[in-house]
Order: sequence, then C-alpha cells, then structure tokens
Amino acid sequence: MTGPAGSICGYTFDDYVEMVKKFHGSPAPGVIIGGFMVNLALRLLPPGRLYDAICETSVCLPDAVQLLTPCTIGNGWLKVLDYSRFAITLYDKETGEGVRIHLDPQKIKSFPEIEGWFLKKKPKSSQDLNLILGEIRTAGESILTEKRVKITPGMYRRPRMGPVAICPSCGEAYPSKDGTTCLACRAGFISGGD
Amino acid sequence: MTGPAGSICGYTFDDYVEMVKKFHGSPAPGVIIGGFMVNLALRLLPPGRLYDAICETSVCLPDAVQLLTPCTIGNGWLKVLDYSRFAITLYDKETGEGVRIHLDPQKIKSFPEIEGWFLKKKPKSSQDLNLILGEIRTAGESILTEKRVKITPGMYRRPRMGPVAICPSCGEAYPSKDGTTCLACRAGFISGGD
Repeated sequence: MTGPAGSICGYTFDDYVEMVKKFHGSPAPGVIIGGFMVNLALRLLPPGRLYDAICETSVCLPDAVQLLTPCTIGNGWLKVLDYSRFAITLYDKETGEGVRIHLDPQKIKSFPEIEGWFLKKKPKSSQDLNLILGEIRTAGESILTEKRVKITPGMYRRPRMGPVAICPSCGEAYPSKDGTTCLACRAGFISGGD
Repeated sequence: MTGPAGSICGYTFDDYVEMVKKFHGSPAPGVIIGGFMVNLALRLLPPGRLYDAICETSVCLPDAVQLLTPCTIGNGWLKVLDYSRFAITLYDKETGEGVRIHLDPQKIKSFPEIEGWFLKKKPKSSQDLNLILGEIRTAGESILTEKRVKITPGMYRRPRMGPVAICPSCGEAYPSKDGTTCLACRAGFISGGD
C-alpha cells in the first residue's frame, strides 16, 4: 500500500516508528528515512504490479523494505548489495523498469541533526535521537533524490537450487551443483557431523 | 519469547502460519519449519540473554528468524552465510555460546511429503502444500537435530562504517575506508549521477 507524500505507505509517522521499534529493535534514523524512501518509490511506480527490491547497504534499509513491501530476504525478492550506499531500488519483476531513491547529501544541509548523523559530523555520543527523528519527520521526502532506472529482469534473482544431494562430510542436504561436498564443509564452517 | 515443544515461540501453529503469509507472502514450508527451529534453539538456550543469529542459507530461514527473534538483516544481528545448508545458529552475543539447529535428512524418512519437498524427490508440480504443512505440523521438532556450538563473539558482526566521504563520481555518501570512490561506482553499478 502506498500513500501521499508525508505518510509512509499508508501509516502515520508515529505508527511507522512503532512498527520499526518492534521489528528493528529501535527507531533507527536509517529505517525511518527508509520508510519515506519506500513510500516515494511506490508513489512513482504504477500500482498493481509486482516489484523486486535492491538495497545498496545491509544497514537499516532492508528492514524498511521488509516492513513495507512484500520483498524479504527469505523470499528472495529483496537483494542486498553491499556497496554501503544509502539507496533502494524498486523495479518491475517483468519489465525491470523501476526507480532508485537515495538520501541526498546535498539536500540535508538545512537539517543539522540528520547531517550530523548521516555524514558522521557529530560523534555518536552527541547525537540526539529525538532531534534527529524530529528533523526526519519535518524533512519527509525533501531530502531524497529519485532516478528512473532499468534493471535487467532476473539479474538479481536468486538462482534455482537444482537437485539436492547429501554431503558426505556433514550429512546435511545441499545443492549438488555446489560440488562433491557442501560449501560450508569446504569453507571449514561448523560441521554438523562433529 | 519462547514456548514449549509444539508451539512456535508462544504462537500456535496456525497463528504462525498467518504471520508467515503476511511477511513472506506464502506459507512456505521452509519458513514454517524455521519456526520450529527458532523455538527449539531458544528453548535450549538460557532465557534473558541477547542472541545473534546465523542462517546458512538465504532461502526462507532468514524470515523465520526475523519474525521470531529481535535479529534482522537491517540491525545486523542476523547474518546470512550463503552455504545453502538448511540450518540456523543462535548464540550469545557476549560469550559466543549457542546452538545450531538443522533439518536432518535422516529424520524425515517417515514424512514423504517433507522429504519430497526438501530433497526434491518430487517435482514442484506434484508437491501438495497442504500435505507438506500437515506433515510439518505433525513432525514439529522431531525432524531437527541440535548441536552446541561456540562462535567467536563479534566474528560475524558488521564492521563499523567509520568516517563518511562523498564519492566524487556519484556524489553520494560512502565509507571513506572503501577508497577514493564508492564500491558501487567501482563496480559499475547504477550511478546516481547519470
């Protein structure tokens, strides 16, 4: 569900903050701003389509996408690329047409608390979460920049697992395409057979 | 919140199935079994401690962990290792002591629908989701195997971001430790400056 500018996918700011506290553990500024990012992306895209999502960082943003869209890590519709950029992309599963939203460093200059947090101009100990959240509420989508993009459909889709084998080393199931033992045993990760 | 064997972290089977439908989009067998895995792990661990989580596959299991524990991708307490093994580990953030639970291929022999799905002995088209879920409900924790483990505390913790710079190529914020431009620009990923 999307909503007008100012709301977050149909939720009020305060309701969304509560959802974030419950899922993420705290009202982290990144997840709150992420809510506005998802809302803007969905507003710019045609309704009634199925979208895949990309987060360019594993920090905070994946939780906004998972809370507000059908895309999760576990269903594979959300892909995290560890580029450490604060950006999300939502794109049509079939056509690849979508929109990328990022938190724009040029647009936060009049929001000293957001700037202090995002660009780390203030040490963590002197950041005030309530002041940051207040500025985020005021700023809304005004600190975001959007760009139309086209992603090759399927490019970031999870590959099919294919046939399953039992690893002779740990005795657990794994995709036989991975080789004669599972990847975990080859990497020396905790063996189930110890 | 944990619960007795048979319940899923305090939820009934049916309530958990509804939660999974809402978050994951469908009552995928992997997320449902994942619920029993999380429940067993938490029951075997001392209450009142903070746990980090590892999933050894990105398929399904991360959503069970995210629904039932405070660990999410966005807060960094859940780490996904792409080993394609159907296992989760919960471990004490401070001591590293924990438990690893996997779906045991040896224990599903009397559950033909689960076996057909998990080991891909049946083609997808002849799998019956309701029959699989029925077997999962009956099987509960009996198809799981646990193992005490000790993870080096902090080993899978997200590294600190450190100072932030503005990428001269895309104009976006990135951790300056990544180099003179951001990783996305170096990888040729969608440029915000196009």
